[in-house]
Amino acid sequence: MEILGKQFVDGKRLAASVTPFFSRDAATGETLPYEFFPATETEISAAATAAATAFRSYRATGLEERAVFLEAIAAELDASGDAFISIVMRESGLPEPRIRGERLRTSNQLRLFATVVRRGDFLGPRIDTALPDRQPLPRPDIRQYRIAVGPVAVFGAGNFPLAFSVAGGDTASALAAGCPVVVKAHSGHPVTSELVARAIVRAADRTGMPAGVFGMLFGDNSGAPLVKNPEIKSVAFTGSLRGGRALSEIAASRPEPIPVFAEMSSVNPVILLPGAVQERGNAIASTLAASVTLGAGQFCTNPGLIIGIAGEAFEQFCHQLAEEMKNRPPAIMLTRAILNNYQEGSARLAKIPGMEMLTGTSTAPDRAAARLFRAAPELLKDSNHPLEEEVFGPATVLVAVKNSDELLEVISVLNGQLTASLFAAGSDGAVCKPLMEALETRVGRVILNDVPTGVEVCDAMVHGGPFPATSDSRSTSVGTLAIDRFLRPVCFQGYPDHLLPEALQDANPLGLRRFVNGTWSEAPIDR
Amino acid sequence: MEILGKQFVDGKRLAASVTPFFSRDAATGETLPYEFFPATETEISAAATAAATAFRSYRATGLEERAVFLEAIAAELDASGDAFISIVMRESGLPEPRIRGERLRTSNQLRLFATVVRRGDFLGPRIDTALPDRQPLPRPDIRQYRIAVGPVAVFGAGNFPLAFSVAGGDTASALAAGCPVVVKAHSGHPVTSELVARAIVRAADRTGMPAGVFGMLFGDNSGAPLVKNPEIKSVAFTGSLRGGRALSEIAASRPEPIPVFAEMSSVNPVILLPGAVQERGNAIASTLAASVTLGAGQFCTNPGLIIGIAGEAFEQFCHQLAEEMKNRPPAIMLTRAILNNYQEGSARLAKIPGMEMLTGTSTAPDRAAARLFRAAPELLKDSNHPLEEEVFGPATVLVAVKNSDELLEVISVLNGQLTASLFAAGSDGAVCKPLMEALETRVGRVILNDVPTGVEVCDAMVHGGPFPATSDSRSTSVGTLAIDRFLRPVCFQGYPDHLLPEALQDANPLGLRRFVNGTWSEAPIDR
Repeated sequence: MEILGKQFVDGKRLAASVTPFFSRDAATGETLPYEFFPATETEISAAATAAATAFRSYRATGLEERAVFLEAIAAELDASGDAFISIVMRESGLPEPRIRGERLRTSNQLRLFATVVRRGDFLGPRIDTALPDRQPLPRPDIRQYRIAVGPVAVFGAGNFPLAFSVAGGDTASALAAGCPVVVKAHSGHPVTSELVARAIVRAADRTGMPAGVFGMLFGDNSGAPLVKNPEIKSVAFTGSLRGGRALSEIAASRPEPIPVFAEMSSVNPVILLPGAVQERGNAIASTLAASVTLGAGQFCTNPGLIIGIAGEAFEQFCHQLAEEMKNRPPAIMLTRAILNNYQEGSARLAKIPGMEMLTGTSTAPDRAAARLFRAAPELLKDSNHPLEEEVFGPATVLVAVKNSDELLEVISVLNGQLTASLFAAGSDGAVCKPLMEALETRVGRVILNDVPTGVEVCDAMVHGGPFPATSDSRSTSVGTLAIDRFLRPVCFQGYPDHLLPEALQDANPLGLRRFVNGTWSEAPIDR
Repeated sequence: MEILGKQFVDGKRLAASVTPFFSRDAATGETLPYEFFPATETEISAAATAAATAFRSYRATGLEERAVFLEAIAAELDASGDAFISIVMRESGLPEPRIRGERLRTSNQLRLFATVVRRGDFLGPRIDTALPDRQPLPRPDIRQYRIAVGPVAVFGAGNFPLAFSVAGGDTASALAAGCPVVVKAHSGHPVTSELVARAIVRAADRTGMPAGVFGMLFGDNSGAPLVKNPEIKSVAFTGSLRGGRALSEIAASRPEPIPVFAEMSSVNPVILLPGAVQERGNAIASTLAASVTLGAGQFCTNPGLIIGIAGEAFEQFCHQLAEEMKNRPPAIMLTRAILNNYQEGSARLAKIPGMEMLTGTSTAPDRAAARLFRAAPELLKDSNHPLEEEVFGPATVLVAVKNSDELLEVISVLNGQLTASLFAAGSDGAVCKPLMEALETRVGRVILNDVPTGVEVCDAMVHGGPFPATSDSRSTSVGTLAIDRFLRPVCFQGYPDHLLPEALQDANPLGLRRFVNGTWSEAPIDR
């Protein structure tokens, strides 16, 4: 497998720097024989300029043309062979079924955005036709639709080397919107990144897209200059709170500030009501143990905080969960850095006064042990939110509050989260409704009787939530609504039909549902 | 007319500070006998807390109930008497027809948002029903809608004492979304602000809204602490670039950063093609002179830059425009501070090398003379964008470029703007399309053969645009799409029907158009 380790810039491969970094085996930490050259300032700038040039033609591509491009990327991904699967496994430490599943999720996501593009609703057409006789003043003809914002910088995430990386949801939704993409490759899986980037480039070539529609840069220092580049108009990021805040600050201090859609930090609280614990505590313990340790806990939606109501049933549940977690084998993590962070984060949790570690003394130094903590309920009310600092990995914290009033009280002061889960039984009755209403204001997704891991890619998904879960609660990074991040409205006043974009022409040649004079309509306009 | 000059906090009037400021007559600068007490930190905090408390019940109001509240505010405004009109005129220096028209625009805007609320589309319902038999994994039932973000801080603007102030578009759209509002009253029209606030409070009382749904604070130092208050979740502002950037920085540096929708700075370029100038240069000159001087030029959409193509016809047009502007009488401005800024801004323009003032030597020190400048074309390419620094008032700058290629070139490097106007005739032919495409990427609204002043309040309006026109190009502050600023999506997974919000229940009790399993439908769901 020949890996060049150079940047992807305007259809060319460039690398002027001389000190490479290397891909590593996640399980052993050993260096793999693939070298990568961090992008130079010149290369970063060239990638952004190429994206800006490509934007002029790419944003004008027809809906069918753009959908075919997305499907071509999906097909290229699906066609990647066993050697591809092997190297992704090696770089990520994730097992084969997960990688095969994630590849399918990634290509299906691209196909889903192709259907969004073909449907065309994302163009958001709104039309108010002229009222020449209106008093005291006539109304001009005004027509609005949404256009792509411009080149988007996408930061590949470490924990989903395919679905949240080079050809992941951010790239798919940006390309669907009509925005060229420049990816900052995650250093945890550079070979994977290069191979996926090549798949995108082949798809772009095959479908006649401009070369600058996709670019990619290696090296951890390429992110900040990319976000500072004036040609970049939006940023999508999945990663740590610190990383997301740093990018937000850079973007805000540009001469032209730009939006940053950062998906950052969430402990995804799980609320257990007494009826549910009484009725099926053991089953919930098994489900939660599996969710906490799935993929070595390396999910944004990992359940990191479990809140129950004090009592015998909850104590029995805690005991059961501890047993379940003890039996989970220590797991390989994505990178050494992530493993180190997990060990440090666990140690930090363990040292909090009022915290006790129930399980998780590891004997394997290269692996992450599943860890279960028990916290004093006062910690939930601590204004520093010590229980809401995400420890990325297979760890979770148990805490019992006195009663449902105290539960409502602690929920109302929770930080923003991606998700909250509520386990309830019929016997838990009337408390569910106020709890759910309170949770709704704190999170992007509320789940009844299920764990938060497993994020469905669909129209209704919200993978977002108030800060610090994300930097912009009005968006989602999973599901078709993600395209909205990269669009802005523009309107045209007093245009003759032939100068309007197709989406807004009288005849409605794209067959869109349009909001015309206060009513939804697919009909042509008679003027 | 009894004016208390105290804050509006949770249905009470509070003022603990002792040093008042006074309302002033715009025309004379003289102090009027109405005193206002700047809000104290305690009062600011109390208003935000009251808004947060009110949020819990207000966000849950039914659509009809909320629409009736908006209509009640409109009715209160419409019922305000002649004394009200007089004091608004006195504080703003604006003429009676303008104030009466603006009042009607403001109440109609509230009524338009009532129809938006009743229609319910803003709830954005998206439903993916469960697929229990899907392989390899079942799909859970997931349902998304949009909820209000929380209390909104609204900064009243000086130039529209009614339509962009206490009960203006920002307040109307935030209340429509389900967000309580705390207004920072503009110090240029405090009596107007108090009277409008009282109208809102009466409407809230009459329709049974929680007292904290509306609050208002006096004093220019109340803005920053209001934006810093943790209960405030979004900010809407119309004003200067400096003011908007300052608020954006405060909001971004909060422990929980929040969005700021600031509408700031735009020179609204007007492009004149030779055919149009040849055909009807004199008429265009009259129209533009009227637009530049309308309301003493105190509009965000004032045309501050006129670009033509060099030649005899354009010179004749310039001559004509200068004649038209000479005949405009010097005008009263909103406040002394705004007048001073206008004089300073004009002087700054006049001093730019390559700039010449054609008309506008004023003889009335208390009035703003209409000023016409002519700039060397090189200034359009200056990377400091000297011609794009807004001079708020009745001034505009003429500049001629060589040909349509140069025109395209200068347009592509323009800063973001609220609007651009293109005057073209049939004989200008093929150049229109590329020009319009280039303008579309720089602005929120492109206007053909008309001036930018006059912003229609409708579904299709975009009063927004790339930075520095606004701080968030994905939004509009005029028109029904403005409600989107104050909503965020949330989804529910695995809910039984009775725990879902009405918008998402199977029976579709609100009769909404919903996106169900990839198709738009108003039908109930059979599960």
